[in-house]
Amino acid sequence: MRMIKPMADLYEQLRRLPGIGSKTAMRLAYHIVDRPEAEVRQLASALLAAKQQIRLCSVCFNLSDGECCEICSRKDRDGSVICVVEQPQDLMAMERSHGYKGIYHVLHGVLSPLDGIGPDNLKIRELFLRLQRTQIKEVILATNSDVEGEATAAYLAQLLKPIGIRVSRIAHGIPVGGDLEYADEVTLARALENRRTI
Amino acid sequence: MRMIKPMADLYEQLRRLPGIGSKTAMRLAYHIVDRPEAEVRQLASALLAAKQQIRLCSVCFNLSDGECCEICSRKDRDGSVICVVEQPQDLMAMERSHGYKGIYHVLHGVLSPLDGIGPDNLKIRELFLRLQRTQIKEVILATNSDVEGEATAAYLAQLLKPIGIRVSRIAHGIPVGGDLEYADEVTLARALENRRTI
Repeated sequence: MRMIKPMADLYEQLRRLPGIGSKTAMRLAYHIVDRPEAEVRQLASALLAAKQQIRLCSVCFNLSDGECCEICSRKDRDGSVICVVEQPQDLMAMERSHGYKGIYHVLHGVLSPLDGIGPDNLKIRELFLRLQRTQIKEVILATNSDVEGEATAAYLAQLLKPIGIRVSRIAHGIPVGGDLEYADEVTLARALENRRTI
Repeated sequence: MRMIKPMADLYEQLRRLPGIGSKTAMRLAYHIVDRPEAEVRQLASALLAAKQQIRLCSVCFNLSDGECCEICSRKDRDGSVICVVEQPQDLMAMERSHGYKGIYHVLHGVLSPLDGIGPDNLKIRELFLRLQRTQIKEVILATNSDVEGEATAAYLAQLLKPIGIRVSRIAHGIPVGGDLEYADEVTLARALENRRTI
Protein backbone atom coordinates (compact mmCIF):
# COMPACT_ATOMS: atom_id res chain seq x y z
CA MET A 1 0.00 0.00 0.00
CA ARG A 2 1.32 3.39 -0.96
CA MET A 3 0.93 6.30 1.44
CA ILE A 4 -2.08 8.43 0.50
CA LYS A 5 -1.07 11.67 -1.21
CA PRO A 6 -1.80 14.27 1.50
CA MET A 7 0.12 12.09 3.96
CA ALA A 8 3.05 11.56 1.59
CA ASP A 9 3.21 15.32 0.91
CA LEU A 10 3.23 16.16 4.61
CA TYR A 11 5.86 13.50 5.26
CA GLU A 12 8.07 14.92 2.49
CA GLN A 13 7.77 18.44 3.89
CA LEU A 14 8.55 17.37 7.46
CA ARG A 15 11.43 15.23 6.25
CA ARG A 16 13.15 18.36 4.89
CA LEU A 17 13.39 19.97 8.32
CA PRO A 18 16.82 19.76 9.94
CA GLY A 19 17.27 16.93 12.43
CA ILE A 20 13.99 15.27 11.42
CA GLY A 21 14.69 11.77 10.15
CA SER A 22 12.23 9.55 8.31
CA LYS A 23 10.85 7.90 11.47
CA THR A 24 10.31 11.22 13.25
CA ALA A 25 8.69 12.72 10.14
CA MET A 26 6.33 9.76 9.97
CA ARG A 27 5.46 10.00 13.66
CA LEU A 28 4.84 13.74 13.33
CA ALA A 29 2.64 13.23 10.25
CA TYR A 30 0.45 10.69 12.07
CA HIS A 31 0.33 12.98 15.11
CA ILE A 32 -0.87 15.89 12.97
CA VAL A 33 -3.62 13.88 11.28
CA ASP A 34 -4.74 12.83 14.75
CA ARG A 35 -5.01 16.36 16.21
CA PRO A 36 -8.07 18.62 16.01
CA GLU A 37 -8.11 20.86 12.95
CA ALA A 38 -7.95 24.05 15.07
CA GLU A 39 -4.63 22.92 16.53
CA VAL A 40 -3.11 22.16 13.11
CA ARG A 41 -4.39 25.50 11.86
CA GLN A 42 -2.60 27.25 14.78
CA LEU A 43 0.67 25.56 13.88
CA ALA A 44 0.31 26.46 10.19
CA SER A 45 -0.48 30.08 11.07
CA ALA A 46 2.47 30.33 13.44
CA LEU A 47 4.76 29.10 10.65
CA LEU A 48 3.48 31.68 8.18
CA ALA A 49 3.33 34.51 10.72
CA ALA A 50 6.94 33.90 11.78
CA LYS A 51 8.10 33.96 8.18
CA GLN A 52 6.01 36.99 7.21
CA GLN A 53 6.39 39.18 10.29
CA ILE A 54 10.00 38.59 11.19
CA ARG A 55 12.54 40.70 9.34
CA LEU A 56 16.09 41.77 10.02
CA CYS A 57 16.89 44.81 12.17
CA SER A 58 18.10 47.56 9.83
CA VAL A 59 21.03 48.31 12.15
CA CYS A 60 22.44 45.02 13.44
CA PHE A 61 20.53 42.41 11.35
CA ASN A 62 19.16 40.62 14.40
CA LEU A 63 15.69 39.12 13.96
CA SER A 64 13.07 41.75 14.59
CA ASP A 65 9.34 42.36 14.18
CA GLY A 66 9.90 46.07 13.55
CA GLU A 67 12.39 48.36 11.79
CA CYS A 68 14.83 48.14 14.72
CA CYS A 69 15.39 45.19 17.03
CA GLU A 70 14.79 45.38 20.77
CA ILE A 71 18.48 45.77 21.58
CA CYS A 72 19.21 48.52 19.07
CA SER A 73 16.13 50.44 20.29
CA ARG A 74 17.19 50.37 23.93
CA LYS A 75 18.77 53.41 25.56
CA ASP A 76 20.70 51.48 28.22
CA ARG A 77 23.02 49.64 25.83
CA ASP A 78 26.54 50.85 25.17
CA GLY A 79 26.49 51.85 21.50
CA SER A 80 30.28 52.11 21.26
CA VAL A 81 30.95 48.37 21.54
CA ILE A 82 29.83 45.97 18.81
CA CYS A 83 29.84 42.22 19.30
CA VAL A 84 29.96 40.37 15.96
CA VAL A 85 28.15 37.02 15.92
CA GLU A 86 27.36 34.49 13.21
CA GLN A 87 23.65 34.00 13.72
CA PRO A 88 20.70 35.50 15.64
CA GLN A 89 20.73 32.42 17.90
CA ASP A 90 24.32 33.27 18.94
CA LEU A 91 23.13 36.75 19.89
CA MET A 92 20.38 35.17 22.03
CA ALA A 93 23.00 32.98 23.74
CA MET A 94 25.14 36.04 24.52
CA GLU A 95 22.10 37.82 25.93
CA ARG A 96 21.30 34.87 28.18
CA SER A 97 24.69 35.34 29.85
CA HIS A 98 23.60 38.83 31.02
CA GLY A 99 27.28 39.76 30.83
CA TYR A 100 27.24 42.07 27.82
CA LYS A 101 25.82 45.57 27.66
CA GLY A 102 26.98 46.64 24.19
CA ILE A 103 25.25 46.15 20.85
CA TYR A 104 25.57 43.50 18.16
CA HIS A 105 26.17 42.82 14.51
CA VAL A 106 24.85 39.57 13.01
CA LEU A 107 26.83 38.32 10.00
CA HIS A 108 24.26 35.70 8.98
CA GLY A 109 26.88 33.11 8.22
CA VAL A 110 30.63 32.58 8.10
CA LEU A 111 33.21 32.64 5.36
CA SER A 112 33.20 29.22 3.75
CA PRO A 113 34.89 29.12 0.33
CA LEU A 114 33.99 25.46 -0.16
CA ASP A 115 30.30 26.35 0.08
CA GLY A 116 30.82 29.41 -2.09
CA ILE A 117 30.25 31.83 0.78
CA GLY A 118 32.52 34.85 0.54
CA PRO A 119 32.54 38.25 2.29
CA ASP A 120 29.82 39.56 -0.06
CA ASN A 121 27.38 36.90 1.14
CA LEU A 122 27.68 38.07 4.75
CA LYS A 123 26.73 41.36 6.40
CA ILE A 124 30.36 42.50 6.36
CA ARG A 125 29.98 45.57 4.15
CA GLU A 126 27.11 46.64 6.43
CA LEU A 127 29.42 46.31 9.45
CA PHE A 128 31.95 48.69 7.91
CA LEU A 129 29.19 51.15 6.98
CA ARG A 130 28.14 51.15 10.65
CA LEU A 131 31.72 51.78 11.73
CA GLN A 132 31.87 54.76 9.37
CA ARG A 133 28.55 56.21 10.49
CA THR A 134 28.88 55.81 14.27
CA GLN A 135 31.67 56.19 16.81
CA ILE A 136 32.72 52.64 17.75
CA LYS A 137 35.46 51.99 20.30
CA GLU A 138 35.67 48.23 20.19
CA VAL A 139 34.59 45.31 18.03
CA ILE A 140 34.37 41.96 19.80
CA LEU A 141 34.60 39.00 17.44
CA ALA A 142 32.35 36.26 18.80
CA THR A 143 32.18 33.88 15.85
CA ASN A 144 32.41 30.19 16.70
CA SER A 145 35.77 28.54 17.25
CA ASP A 146 35.49 26.09 14.37
CA VAL A 147 37.59 26.50 11.22
CA GLU A 148 35.14 28.81 9.43
CA GLY A 149 34.45 30.88 12.54
CA GLU A 150 38.16 31.38 13.21
CA ALA A 151 38.84 32.26 9.56
CA THR A 152 36.01 34.79 9.58
CA ALA A 153 37.32 36.35 12.80
CA ALA A 154 40.85 36.54 11.37
CA TYR A 155 39.54 38.10 8.16
CA LEU A 156 37.56 40.74 10.05
CA ALA A 157 40.47 41.49 12.41
CA GLN A 158 42.73 42.07 9.43
CA LEU A 159 40.28 44.60 7.96
CA LEU A 160 39.43 46.28 11.26
CA LYS A 161 42.89 46.81 12.74
CA PRO A 162 44.04 49.43 10.16
CA ILE A 163 40.94 51.54 10.97
CA GLY A 164 42.27 52.00 14.49
CA ILE A 165 39.38 50.36 16.31
CA ARG A 166 40.16 48.01 19.19
CA VAL A 167 39.45 44.46 18.02
CA SER A 168 39.08 41.60 20.47
CA ARG A 169 38.19 37.90 20.33
CA ILE A 170 36.11 36.14 22.98
CA ALA A 171 38.16 33.81 25.18
CA HIS A 172 38.35 30.10 24.48
CA GLY A 173 39.41 27.72 27.21
CA ILE A 174 38.09 25.20 29.74
CA PRO A 175 34.33 25.72 30.26
CA VAL A 176 33.48 26.87 33.78
CA GLY A 177 32.72 23.75 35.85
CA GLY A 178 34.51 21.62 33.26
CA ASP A 179 37.02 18.95 34.25
CA LEU A 180 40.61 19.26 32.98
CA GLU A 181 40.62 15.49 32.73
CA TYR A 182 37.87 15.46 30.12
CA ALA A 183 38.87 18.58 28.15
CA ASP A 184 39.94 17.92 24.56
CA GLU A 185 43.56 18.64 23.59
CA VAL A 186 42.81 21.67 21.41
CA THR A 187 40.78 23.39 24.12
CA LEU A 188 43.44 22.61 26.72
CA ALA A 189 46.22 23.93 24.47
CA ARG A 190 44.19 27.10 23.88
CA ALA A 191 43.51 27.51 27.61
CA LEU A 192 47.24 27.31 28.32
CA GLU A 193 48.19 29.63 25.52
CA ASN A 194 45.67 32.27 26.63
CA ARG A 195 46.53 32.02 30.35
CA ARG A 196 46.23 35.24 32.34
CA THR A 197 48.55 36.51 35.08
CA ILE A 198 46.68 36.69 38.39
CA MET B 1 16.17 40.14 25.60
CA ARG B 2 12.82 38.41 25.20
CA MET B 3 12.05 36.41 22.08
CA ILE B 4 10.01 38.45 19.60
CA LYS B 5 6.37 37.43 19.51
CA PRO B 6 6.09 35.63 16.15
CA MET B 7 9.18 33.63 17.10
CA ALA B 8 7.88 32.81 20.58
CA ASP B 9 4.54 31.72 19.10
CA LEU B 10 6.21 29.45 16.56
CA TYR B 11 8.48 28.00 19.24
CA GLU B 12 5.47 27.25 21.46
CA GLN B 13 3.65 25.50 18.61
CA LEU B 14 6.66 23.39 17.64
CA ARG B 15 7.33 22.56 21.27
CA ARG B 16 3.92 20.85 21.50
CA LEU B 17 4.80 18.28 18.84
CA PRO B 18 5.74 14.83 20.19
CA GLY B 19 9.46 14.20 20.55
CA ILE B 20 10.35 17.83 19.92
CA GLY B 21 12.22 19.23 22.93
CA SER B 22 12.98 22.88 23.60
CA LYS B 23 16.33 22.86 21.78
CA THR B 24 14.93 21.16 18.67
CA ALA B 25 11.93 23.52 18.65
CA MET B 26 14.29 26.49 18.81
CA ARG B 27 16.49 25.14 16.03
CA LEU B 28 13.46 24.46 13.85
CA ALA B 29 12.06 27.95 14.49
CA TYR B 30 15.33 29.60 13.41
CA HIS B 31 15.48 27.30 10.40
CA ILE B 32 11.98 28.28 9.32
CA VAL B 33 12.67 32.01 9.61
CA ASP B 34 15.73 31.41 7.47
CA ARG B 35 13.94 29.61 4.63
CA PRO B 36 12.30 31.28 1.61
CA GLU B 37 8.64 32.14 2.16
CA ALA B 38 7.51 29.77 -0.62
CA GLU B 39 9.05 26.85 1.23
CA VAL B 40 7.39 27.74 4.54
CA ARG B 41 4.09 28.19 2.71
CA GLN B 42 4.46 24.68 1.25
CA LEU B 43 4.94 23.21 4.71
CA ALA B 44 1.96 25.11 6.13
CA SER B 45 -0.23 23.98 3.20
CA ALA B 46 0.87 20.37 3.58
CA LEU B 47 -0.12 20.50 7.26
CA LEU B 48 -3.57 21.88 6.51
CA ALA B 49 -4.13 19.65 3.48
CA ALA B 50 -3.26 16.53 5.46
CA LYS B 51 -5.68 17.50 8.20
CA GLN B 52 -8.48 18.55 5.85
CA GLN B 53 -8.25 15.87 3.18
CA ILE B 54 -7.48 12.80 5.24
CA ARG B 55 -10.44 11.03 6.77
CA LEU B 56 -11.12 7.55 8.03
CA CYS B 57 -12.15 4.76 5.68
CA SER B 58 -15.83 4.03 6.30
CA VAL B 59 -15.16 0.29 6.38
CA CYS B 60 -11.90 -0.32 8.25
CA PHE B 61 -11.08 3.16 9.69
CA ASN B 62 -7.69 3.28 8.03
CA LEU B 63 -6.57 6.76 6.92
CA SER B 64 -8.00 7.55 3.51
CA ASP B 65 -8.46 10.44 1.11
CA GLY B 66 -11.74 9.03 -0.14
CA GLU B 67 -14.80 7.20 1.19
CA CYS B 68 -12.97 3.86 1.14
CA CYS B 69 -9.26 3.26 1.73
CA GLU B 70 -7.00 1.73 -0.89
CA ILE B 71 -7.04 -1.71 0.73
CA CYS B 72 -10.81 -1.94 1.16
CA SER B 73 -11.29 -0.84 -2.48
CA ARG B 74 -9.01 -3.53 -3.87
CA LYS B 75 -10.44 -6.67 -5.42
CA ASP B 76 -7.39 -8.87 -4.79
CA ARG B 77 -7.64 -8.81 -0.98
CA ASP B 78 -9.26 -11.64 0.95
CA GLY B 79 -12.33 -10.03 2.50
CA SER B 80 -12.96 -12.96 4.83
CA VAL B 81 -9.97 -12.33 7.11
CA ILE B 82 -9.77 -9.19 9.25
CA CYS B 83 -6.57 -8.14 10.99
CA VAL B 84 -7.29 -5.88 13.96
CA VAL B 85 -4.59 -3.26 14.65
CA GLU B 86 -4.32 -0.36 17.09
CA GLN B 87 -3.35 2.47 14.72
CA PRO B 88 -3.06 3.24 11.00
CA GLN B 89 0.73 3.14 11.35
CA ASP B 90 0.48 -0.49 12.54
CA LEU B 91 -1.51 -1.28 9.40
CA MET B 92 1.26 0.30 7.30
CA ALA B 93 3.84 -1.84 9.11
CA MET B 94 1.82 -4.99 8.36
CA GLU B 95 1.58 -3.97 4.70
CA ARG B 96 5.33 -3.47 4.50
CA SER B 97 5.78 -7.16 5.40
CA HIS B 98 3.91 -8.11 2.18
CA GLY B 99 2.81 -11.23 4.08
CA TYR B 100 -0.87 -10.44 4.55
CA LYS B 101 -3.55 -10.49 1.88
CA GLY B 102 -6.65 -10.00 4.04
CA ILE B 103 -8.28 -6.76 5.14
CA TYR B 104 -7.97 -4.69 8.32
CA HIS B 105 -9.81 -3.03 11.14
CA VAL B 106 -8.16 -0.08 12.91
CA LEU B 107 -9.26 0.35 16.54
CA HIS B 108 -7.70 3.82 16.93
CA GLY B 109 -6.38 3.09 20.37
CA VAL B 110 -6.30 0.40 23.05
CA LEU B 111 -8.28 -0.22 26.20
CA SER B 112 -6.69 1.81 28.94
CA PRO B 113 -8.90 2.29 31.99
CA LEU B 114 -6.32 4.53 33.68
CA ASP B 115 -6.59 7.00 30.78
CA GLY B 116 -10.37 6.63 30.73
CA ILE B 117 -10.36 4.75 27.42
CA GLY B 118 -12.99 2.03 27.38
CA PRO B 119 -14.51 -0.08 24.58
CA ASP B 120 -16.81 2.80 23.53
CA ASN B 121 -13.81 5.01 22.73
CA LEU B 122 -12.45 2.52 20.22
CA LYS B 123 -13.87 1.24 16.93
CA ILE B 124 -15.03 -1.99 18.59
CA ARG B 125 -18.75 -1.59 17.98
CA GLU B 126 -17.93 -0.93 14.33
CA LEU B 127 -15.94 -4.18 14.20
CA PHE B 128 -18.93 -6.19 15.38
CA LEU B 129 -21.21 -4.42 12.89
CA ARG B 130 -18.79 -5.50 10.14
CA LEU B 131 -18.88 -9.08 11.39
CA GLN B 132 -22.67 -9.04 11.27
CA ARG B 133 -22.83 -7.52 7.79
CA THR B 134 -20.17 -9.60 6.04
CA GLN B 135 -19.04 -13.21 6.08
CA ILE B 136 -15.79 -13.27 8.08
CA LYS B 137 -13.89 -16.49 8.69
CA GLU B 138 -11.05 -15.27 10.89
CA VAL B 139 -10.11 -12.28 13.01
CA ILE B 140 -6.37 -11.86 13.64
CA LEU B 141 -5.62 -9.77 16.72
CA ALA B 142 -2.48 -7.76 16.00
CA THR B 143 -2.52 -5.27 18.87
CA ASN B 144 0.85 -4.58 20.48
CA SER B 145 2.23 -6.91 23.11
CA ASP B 146 2.30 -4.34 25.92
CA VAL B 147 -0.18 -4.52 28.81
CA GLU B 148 -2.90 -2.48 27.10
CA GLY B 149 -2.48 -4.26 23.78
CA GLU B 150 -2.71 -7.68 25.41
CA ALA B 151 -5.72 -6.65 27.47
CA THR B 152 -7.47 -5.35 24.35
CA ALA B 153 -6.71 -8.57 22.49
CA ALA B 154 -8.02 -10.65 25.41
CA TYR B 155 -11.17 -8.51 25.61
CA LEU B 156 -11.86 -8.88 21.88
CA ALA B 157 -11.13 -12.63 21.93
CA GLN B 158 -13.66 -13.06 24.73
CA LEU B 159 -16.36 -11.29 22.72
CA LEU B 160 -15.49 -12.91 19.38
CA LYS B 161 -15.22 -16.55 20.40
CA PRO B 162 -18.95 -17.05 21.20
CA ILE B 163 -19.84 -15.82 17.67
CA GLY B 164 -18.04 -18.83 16.26
CA ILE B 165 -15.43 -16.93 14.27
CA ARG B 166 -11.85 -18.19 14.34
CA VAL B 167 -9.82 -15.79 16.48
CA SER B 168 -6.02 -15.76 16.35
CA ARG B 169 -3.21 -13.70 17.86
CA ILE B 170 -0.01 -12.82 15.97
CA ALA B 171 3.02 -14.75 17.23
CA HIS B 172 5.43 -13.24 19.74
CA GLY B 173 8.94 -14.61 20.06
CA ILE B 174 12.54 -14.03 19.11
CA PRO B 175 12.75 -11.52 16.22
CA VAL B 176 14.16 -13.07 13.04
CA GLY B 177 17.92 -12.48 13.04
CA GLY B 178 17.79 -11.77 16.79
CA ASP B 179 20.29 -13.33 19.18
CA LEU B 180 19.01 -15.60 21.95
CA GLU B 181 21.73 -14.16 24.15
CA TYR B 182 20.29 -10.66 23.99
CA ALA B 183 16.59 -11.52 24.05
CA ASP B 184 14.74 -10.30 27.15
CA GLU B 185 13.30 -12.89 29.54
CA VAL B 186 9.65 -12.24 28.72
CA THR B 187 10.19 -12.62 24.98
CA LEU B 188 12.24 -15.77 25.54
CA ALA B 189 9.60 -17.27 27.82
CA ARG B 190 6.94 -16.48 25.23
CA ALA B 191 9.04 -18.00 22.44
CA LEU B 192 9.37 -21.25 24.43
CA GLU B 193 5.73 -21.36 25.39
CA ASN B 194 4.60 -20.86 21.76
CA ARG B 195 7.09 -23.37 20.30
CA ARG B 196 5.91 -25.29 17.23
CA THR B 197 6.47 -28.93 16.36
CA ILE B 198 8.60 -29.21 13.20
